[in-house]
Amino acid sequence: MEFSSKLLENAVNEMSQLPGVGKRTALRLVLHLLRQPTTQTLDFANALSTMRTEIKFCKSCHNISDTDMCEICANPNRIEDVVCVVEDIRDVMAIENTSSFKGLYHVLGGKISPMDGIGPNELNIQSLVEKVKQGVVKELIFALGSTMEGDTTNFYIYKQIQDYDVKTSTIARGISVGNELEYTDEVTLGRSIINRIPFEASLKS
Amino acid sequence: MEFSSKLLENAVNEMSQLPGVGKRTALRLVLHLLRQPTTQTLDFANALSTMRTEIKFCKSCHNISDTDMCEICANPNRIEDVVCVVEDIRDVMAIENTSSFKGLYHVLGGKISPMDGIGPNELNIQSLVEKVKQGVVKELIFALGSTMEGDTTNFYIYKQIQDYDVKTSTIARGISVGNELEYTDEVTLGRSIINRIPFEASLKS
Repeated sequence: MEFSSKLLENAVNEMSQLPGVGKRTALRLVLHLLRQPTTQTLDFANALSTMRTEIKFCKSCHNISDTDMCEICANPNRIEDVVCVVEDIRDVMAIENTSSFKGLYHVLGGKISPMDGIGPNELNIQSLVEKVKQGVVKELIFALGSTMEGDTTNFYIYKQIQDYDVKTSTIARGISVGNELEYTDEVTLGRSIINRIPFEASLKS
Repeated sequence: MEFSSKLLENAVNEMSQLPGVGKRTALRLVLHLLRQPTTQTLDFANALSTMRTEIKFCKSCHNISDTDMCEICANPNRIEDVVCVVEDIRDVMAIENTSSFKGLYHVLGGKISPMDGIGPNELNIQSLVEKVKQGVVKELIFALGSTMEGDTTNFYIYKQIQDYDVKTSTIARGISVGNELEYTDEVTLGRSIINRIPFEASLKS
């Protein structure tokens, strides 16, 4: 693709780095922005850069937050010793939507996936293990998507903490194998939290 | 959707204003940016705002350009009195790719589309009519997509200039009806420029 403008080419190249956005789509999106008022593009650019530089991650659960401690961790009405392990903020939002869970979360920031170069050290696993070692967690609920990577991550964490006094469970396999958490409907997801089963039992199923 | 962070919510809202990007996709894209180095997001934001504020449109053909006069209009080897009328820069890029055309372009910036609130005054039609009135154009080639809006726009311009001494043609209907110009393959598009037919004849077909 040859562009008549370096500025345009640069914008298209940056836009096409988004996942699922090719050069042609990027050009369409950038041309759309050019047809809109200047303020829209400036607001968009500003929102992105402000978010990237100023966003914080909760010191306790690693969820995205505007403060050092996220609203859920700071809420005294949440059950502190039940911790739900999830992949990212989208899963927190999906579970919060069901109103089935009153405990806290621990956001891993991904799943173990050697194919993508993501090992345990790239995820927030050590801080979770520390929480368990300190005895502040009575129950861990594994709520990762029911995929190969999710199962691997569950099992890795389980191995790290199995010698400590903590109950482990996974959300019920109401979600069909191979599906991601965020696309599950609310009823299924809510029930799968209520009907969680011991992690040992889930290994046999 | 309830967000734990205003910064995140703001970025997602801005992202979801892009055409074809819903809230869920926007969240996925924004979370992707958060997993990448900070510089990527800052470069992206910077490229967008710089483009939006500094980009220029060629004074002659209205194509996107970094200078007052675009490279094509400034090129002395192009045939100055043959002007190809196109919708936007993507069509210029598509036709340039075929190497079939040595004249100049006139970029309308869209097509007449009352459904979208786009009338002749929203497009760069008046400056094209002025060019014809001044007698600097010997031939106009209509190269809009073969859609209802494209045909309407062709006809509107034709009516404005039919009393002046200018030859009009449309690119051959090698492109199938209902298709947009930018998705046509190079051979078809190149031939359709070479086999252009008088506009009067195209009205009867």
